Amino acid sequence: MPYIRETIITTVDRTGKIHIAPIGIISEKDGWVIAPFRPSVTLDNLAAVPFAIANYTDDVRVFAGCLTGRKDWPTVPVEDFLVPRLATALAHSVLEVESVDDDGVRPRHFCRVVREEMHAPFTGLNRAKAAVLELAILVSRLGMLSRDKIEAEIAYLSISIEKTAGADEWEAWGWLMQRVSDHLAAKGSSSGDA
Amino acid sequence: MPYIRETIITTVDRTGKIHIAPIGIISEKDGWVIAPFRPSVTLDNLAAVPFAIANYTDDVRVFAGCLTGRKDWPTVPVEDFLVPRLATALAHSVLEVESVDDDGVRPRHFCRVVREEMHAPFTGLNRAKAAVLELAILVSRLGMLSRDKIEAEIAYLSISIEKTAGADEWEAWGWLMQRVSDHLAAKGSSSGDA
Repeated sequence: MPYIRETIITTVDRTGKIHIAPIGIISEKDGWVIAPFRPSVTLDNLAAVPFAIANYTDDVRVFAGCLTGRKDWPTVPVEDFLVPRLATALAHSVLEVESVDDDGVRPRHFCRVVREEMHAPFTGLNRAKAAVLELAILVSRLGMLSRDKIEAEIAYLSISIEKTAGADEWEAWGWLMQRVSDHLAAKGSSSGDA
Repeated sequence: MPYIRETIITTVDRTGKIHIAPIGIISEKDGWVIAPFRPSVTLDNLAAVPFAIANYTDDVRVFAGCLTGRKDWPTVPVEDFLVPRLATALAHSVLEVESVDDDGVRPRHFCRVVREEMHAPFTGLNRAKAAVLELAILVSRLGMLSRDKIEAEIAYLSISIEKTAGADEWEAWGWLMQRVSDHLAAKGSSSGDA
């Protein structure tokens, strides 16, 4: 399997309305594949305006926020480009869709890198950020997992949170854990999955 | 518990000989605590020359390499400073030891940040990098863990590797897994821990 960067993708519709979404972009040749699920706003936007910004951030509140209804993260204009970037991006790539391979579920948009810019220094890996990202992925798959599997994974991830998280990581973790609690409560009160 | 950045710390001894070591630095007030284990070269170096560079890199080969006898990572000079930085650091902080709180096992060196510099753009979070970091921590604690615990954790981490690793992450993972195999083989052929 190819290398995957976990990014926040910004796109716009034909009115210029901005959409931000956490998407793992897939390394391919000298570019990156964006493969949004069908249906999705990112998919519609790329069909209307075939450009995107891949925002590179380690602010995991943005990933957890987008998954829990907190989508209002500040953006700023990118010079000479119609799609804005995330204000807190440490760096970004300007991407242009070159071709689309429509596979039905996740159409693969092959993008070339037009330009890259750096905004702020990386401040080091952090185990809690990684744990939040893993919990975000778990939250996006809750309906497919047993209670035991969910609880075991959270027990493992919470070790990194307790040992290394700062205020931002605790906040993001809390948003996601609320989703998990809601899901398990709903599951507990019915025989089916939520 | 406070926020912890996983960094590569460079220090020098009184002859100028460079030492690099993966160390989690601990947030405290407006600075960072370096708490190297006793005994260690980093501890000796900070006693002789109370300065360090915290190198911020997401090249997990350096973390895995330092743990598996591959310590020869290129460094470059930092302007007006006696300690060099890692050549592949995306950014670094110049640290000066202000006080030492000697607790016997891990003396806490409180450092103030003298200066920070940015060298290359962050290119996004990656689940495989995080998995390599977790495996590195597991490898540093092999003697304390049961075979079941080791195998369960590796089964979990290998999902992120298989789904998102590039060549560098596979290489780092391989170095660490060799250590795990050696440990389990030694354990299997004796009744005690390796």
